[in-house]
Amino acid sequence: MKKIALLGATGSIGTSTVDVVRAYPDRFQIVSLTFHSNVAKGKQLIDALSPAYVGVGSEAIKEELESLYPTVRFGVGEKGMIEAAELAEIDVVLTAVTGSIGLHPTLAAIEAGKDIALANKETLVMAGEWVMEAAKRNNVSILPVDSEHSAIFQCLEGQQSADNVKELVITASGGSFRELSREDLKAVTLEQALAHPNWSMGEKITIDSSTMVNKGLEVIEAHWLFNMNYDKIKVVLHKESIVHSMVVFQDGAYLAQLGPSDMREPIQYALTYPYRLPIKNEKAFDLTKISQLNFAEMDMTRFPMLALAFTVGKMGGAYPTVFNAANEVAVAAFIAGKISYLQIEELITKAVENHKEQQPVTLEDVIAVDKDIRKTVERWIKEEGNL
Amino acid sequence: MKKIALLGATGSIGTSTVDVVRAYPDRFQIVSLTFHSNVAKGKQLIDALSPAYVGVGSEAIKEELESLYPTVRFGVGEKGMIEAAELAEIDVVLTAVTGSIGLHPTLAAIEAGKDIALANKETLVMAGEWVMEAAKRNNVSILPVDSEHSAIFQCLEGQQSADNVKELVITASGGSFRELSREDLKAVTLEQALAHPNWSMGEKITIDSSTMVNKGLEVIEAHWLFNMNYDKIKVVLHKESIVHSMVVFQDGAYLAQLGPSDMREPIQYALTYPYRLPIKNEKAFDLTKISQLNFAEMDMTRFPMLALAFTVGKMGGAYPTVFNAANEVAVAAFIAGKISYLQIEELITKAVENHKEQQPVTLEDVIAVDKDIRKTVERWIKEEGNL
Repeated sequence: MKKIALLGATGSIGTSTVDVVRAYPDRFQIVSLTFHSNVAKGKQLIDALSPAYVGVGSEAIKEELESLYPTVRFGVGEKGMIEAAELAEIDVVLTAVTGSIGLHPTLAAIEAGKDIALANKETLVMAGEWVMEAAKRNNVSILPVDSEHSAIFQCLEGQQSADNVKELVITASGGSFRELSREDLKAVTLEQALAHPNWSMGEKITIDSSTMVNKGLEVIEAHWLFNMNYDKIKVVLHKESIVHSMVVFQDGAYLAQLGPSDMREPIQYALTYPYRLPIKNEKAFDLTKISQLNFAEMDMTRFPMLALAFTVGKMGGAYPTVFNAANEVAVAAFIAGKISYLQIEELITKAVENHKEQQPVTLEDVIAVDKDIRKTVERWIKEEGNL
Repeated sequence: MKKIALLGATGSIGTSTVDVVRAYPDRFQIVSLTFHSNVAKGKQLIDALSPAYVGVGSEAIKEELESLYPTVRFGVGEKGMIEAAELAEIDVVLTAVTGSIGLHPTLAAIEAGKDIALANKETLVMAGEWVMEAAKRNNVSILPVDSEHSAIFQCLEGQQSADNVKELVITASGGSFRELSREDLKAVTLEQALAHPNWSMGEKITIDSSTMVNKGLEVIEAHWLFNMNYDKIKVVLHKESIVHSMVVFQDGAYLAQLGPSDMREPIQYALTYPYRLPIKNEKAFDLTKISQLNFAEMDMTRFPMLALAFTVGKMGGAYPTVFNAANEVAVAAFIAGKISYLQIEELITKAVENHKEQQPVTLEDVIAVDKDIRKTVERWIKEEGNL
């Protein structure tokens, strides 16, 4: 029985994780879970999973639920997430929260010797150096849950030498606006941004897919996860989202991982690795019915955020954090109707261009930069009003 | 330094193997080689590689070459191939001969403890049971050189449980006549059959590709090499020959191996496994320039030899040998202009339908059946004259 802490249980990845766990009740058990504010769904999960510990987003929610579930322990906020992750009986922590709030609980879980099934890409974007070092020191595995990183992880399985690998090829669907020119982007709406062609995901990641910020974060994540130089990481446009990513080896051979757009596969693989189990009620997938797979070069002019992600990745230090924090604030403002779609890019670019730092930086520096940039970008949004 | 015996040095795979070896003279050495009758090319190879031992196809060739190369040891026929393979210093025997003559030297090499880089698919088709048993008993590796089997081998690397695998998917280009109907096939010529759309190969294998006998032999080879039931082996039409084959895992994930149509890659991988080296002067390959990959179901009515291969594979015993031997004789007769293209299929089908046996059969039985079927099919061709 694998005992799981599920951080971010009511989100898209959290929901798919619960599906995977409930499909194999004899193999998986969610011992602790956390959610932010979706109390209705949170209650359903507590009823269905009977967790020992639940972390929630506010004291008010904690109080409400404590009276309903007297046998469950509750915690609040980051502290709740850390407690959920550190419980003695936990084997693996699946971090399915979105944004930088996943960082501290993940580090705490690693220090507590828990394996990490990582669906929170900001953790490695902000603190890849420290997270990977801590994982190595504590002999814990970081198992990717993102479909792209899981694909690469699967393609790399059994490789007996890092020298075998020539480059990683991350595929990108192109997101909601892949058919639009930069001129077209000036007038797009939130509703349009949320209509992803291939994947059903949360709001933020869907917007991040359309700006290619998501792909940029994945590049930085891949850099840390697979210890790969940025010049050995490529992104190719692959509209069908059938090939989830690829590895090119020294001898010119490619291995590609492909399959249906179903997050249960990478989630389950992170939980069963190195073994595999059937996905219950799996999505129909017949390669001969799909019949065509297209690949094309990424247009870095059309998607400047992808180019910028490579730049901040190579600059290192807190630059990826600046990129990520500015994006989080900007996307939240876009969702709230405060800024236009293209202003997301403008704010990220401005934040990166304004940032100056002397390296090396510490993890504490990075966390301070994260807070500073959020305040700065929020101020820019307020000051410039309806810019 | 890996010391290699190269059986079938002047053929297509042999030539590519020599390219691989000469690209890394500090890593690979061809200590022994054999060829049948291409003396001009054979001399070039002896001059270039300075082998200690050379096996040739006839006493006459042996005598001719002995006077030219007094320091080289020579042998003739099957005995020469066996001696070439058994030399004490040999690490790996690359069997690049075409047809059933590869069987005994391969078995002898296995018993002598040599790893096998297997490009001779008839070895496993005829004697898979005994070859795999001998390999296990002698703790030697059978490393596939066929692009399809190398692809599957690469996709399976590092798998810690055979239960992870759901099915193998072998890709088929469709061969020279893939656009023709069965009606069209009545009038096709040898020259047309030899024009393969994607691969430059020997004559027999090119014809076998067009009849899909080659793919059928690959299915049977895969059955033995990967210990996989026939109902877990699928063939899909993939005209581009970019994806060389795939593995489907229990969780619905596919791994596909892809790359340029260059036999040096699987050859080199069989020699460097589990490591990889760049291919010298590698063929240009840019997935984004290829842009489309197509897959379609195989039409078993259009390609009855593929269906028949599955049938003889499942029947087991000497049935695959009947299929293979009848094909070898029929293809030779077609190349010699004695029969028409569709008579290849007719002769194979007739041979399989006429064959009766009580199982289990021994290796000796299989070898006897191989000889009998050749005689029978040759007699049919003679008797029926210009049928």
